[in-house]
Amino acid sequence: MRLEENIRRVTPYVPGEQPQQKVIKLNTNENPYPPAPGVERALKEMDDGRLRLYPDPEIRMLTESLAEYCQVKPEQIFVGVGSDDVLSMSFLTFFNSGKPILFPDITYSFYKVWAELYRIPYECCPLDEKMHLRKEDYCKENGGIIFPNPNAPTGIYESLDVIEEILKQNPDVIVIVDEAYIDFAGKPSAISLIDRYDNLLVTQTFSKSRSMAGMRIGFAAGNERLIRWLQDVKYSFNSYTMSYPAIVCGTEAVKDTEYFRKTTEKIVATREWSKEKLADLGFEFPDSSTNFIFAKHPKYDGEKLFQALKERQIYVRHWKQPEIAQYLRITVGTDEEMNQFFDTLEEIMKE
Amino acid sequence: MRLEENIRRVTPYVPGEQPQQKVIKLNTNENPYPPAPGVERALKEMDDGRLRLYPDPEIRMLTESLAEYCQVKPEQIFVGVGSDDVLSMSFLTFFNSGKPILFPDITYSFYKVWAELYRIPYECCPLDEKMHLRKEDYCKENGGIIFPNPNAPTGIYESLDVIEEILKQNPDVIVIVDEAYIDFAGKPSAISLIDRYDNLLVTQTFSKSRSMAGMRIGFAAGNERLIRWLQDVKYSFNSYTMSYPAIVCGTEAVKDTEYFRKTTEKIVATREWSKEKLADLGFEFPDSSTNFIFAKHPKYDGEKLFQALKERQIYVRHWKQPEIAQYLRITVGTDEEMNQFFDTLEEIMKE
Repeated sequence: MRLEENIRRVTPYVPGEQPQQKVIKLNTNENPYPPAPGVERALKEMDDGRLRLYPDPEIRMLTESLAEYCQVKPEQIFVGVGSDDVLSMSFLTFFNSGKPILFPDITYSFYKVWAELYRIPYECCPLDEKMHLRKEDYCKENGGIIFPNPNAPTGIYESLDVIEEILKQNPDVIVIVDEAYIDFAGKPSAISLIDRYDNLLVTQTFSKSRSMAGMRIGFAAGNERLIRWLQDVKYSFNSYTMSYPAIVCGTEAVKDTEYFRKTTEKIVATREWSKEKLADLGFEFPDSSTNFIFAKHPKYDGEKLFQALKERQIYVRHWKQPEIAQYLRITVGTDEEMNQFFDTLEEIMKE
Repeated sequence: MRLEENIRRVTPYVPGEQPQQKVIKLNTNENPYPPAPGVERALKEMDDGRLRLYPDPEIRMLTESLAEYCQVKPEQIFVGVGSDDVLSMSFLTFFNSGKPILFPDITYSFYKVWAELYRIPYECCPLDEKMHLRKEDYCKENGGIIFPNPNAPTGIYESLDVIEEILKQNPDVIVIVDEAYIDFAGKPSAISLIDRYDNLLVTQTFSKSRSMAGMRIGFAAGNERLIRWLQDVKYSFNSYTMSYPAIVCGTEAVKDTEYFRKTTEKIVATREWSKEKLADLGFEFPDSSTNFIFAKHPKYDGEKLFQALKERQIYVRHWKQPEIAQYLRITVGTDEEMNQFFDTLEEIMKE
């Protein structure tokens, strides 16, 4: 039938499972703690009558509080419906040269999906044997560059020196640094570089460190010109992407720096003892700067461990892609959840 | 500088003003009544801890309640962040033939913006002298068709006979009927035709009749295959477009059919007496089936009336496009707001 000929057919991204029953959910890098108390208060006190009106299309309140938090100008911030929305808009806006864009072969799997959706050619650059980026791979001619820092699912943080070298080698294309996990790294964000490199866009999300995956908030920081171009595309896509509750609750979350610091520190502490415990059990893993650990065991098959944990109501993430099929990506939960995870893992390993 | 060469440069849509000060706001077709009481209850009782988790990517709860409301299968419903999001995704999914898509010359101005964003060629078909669609214009070769019914900003409803003829003439392309204002028409929705025409997609929004512009909810109904293709593109864009509060509150709004009926009837009653009053004052307007009236006066300039009202804190919508520059689009507010509008208008006309 001719109708089918003109449809954009794509292979969509498959997100981690969202089980409906009660399980220990360590599979989609969510935060085990609730959002800042101000978020609950904002929801309870929200004037529902305000919902009849369109939200502020410029999202000023949230943009201004993020600018203050990042110590940049509001004109250097772009807010969207999760960092997926921000990244998708960025692909559409910035990767139009027809030349292949570059990203690591082991990385967030959505990059490939966006490239295919918008018909952007791409090349994947292999990580080195220690799972680090090889910066020389990003020096050839290209239509743009994107990588997460820390990378997912490896959890590895690359220093700003590496990022600056890539930026210097690529003055004519946009380099996007996806910092979804930066708040767990205890190391500097590339946002500190946006005034010096006008080809740099840095994205972050409220879904991990701010416990608001359910609210859908992400943002980008970059040169004012880049942000303006991104805004123009956003206004051409949907003038009102951010709901009123997201704007109000997101602002409350940004304001509460103390709660943010405390919950992030708790997750980092849990991650550190979990690393020791995993090492004791014989697991191998790159040193994680995130809220997950990417681990394999020389004697136990990755997929079998994944299935055995799932049968016992513990969900972690596993991919069938051959290079990483031996690995489990384990989200850092509460201390209690991690103790239950390790008890179950030890049982499985003894069988 | 070379950086600029590879940027997608677009002329964005300019939404109606969202004034920060207290005004009578009859410019963006918002509903003057608050959302259904269940929405406020859902916000107050919302478990903020749930926000740490990603929302259901399949949006099942809201999809199922909409399917029941529309008397179709859940597989025939696609939900998005306002109907702008649904329409934007639909342009990206369905209008890929390279042939020009067709839409009326006087219509929702976003259609042109999406076509430009996605580089889809388009042709505008003039309305007839009574501002109706000329169905014969939609019989030539094309890459797809879109029009609102009732049309905006004219407010005119076309019968399903007209729509069926357009559908029959265009079996190989997708015809989108944008029913943003259908609930005020008191006339049948084209959703009743989706089982008979596999090239029909009908979109609706929660921003007008359901008083939830601030929550960003819209949906499409169509053949299961069309919906699946749309889902694939959505999952390739952003897996989690709908926030948890939007899903929960949207479902509450759909359930309360009685409140929906009552508020919609109130707006229709206000519209009807406002039409009489406008006619008494000498205004001319097509017969509106929506929550706005598109009116001009043979003796008063449209832009001057618009400015004079604005100076007196009454915002209506006005476009500079020459064919419609004499018109004001006046959103139907409460009886009280309309009385204030008419008092002010009469003052201005006496000056």
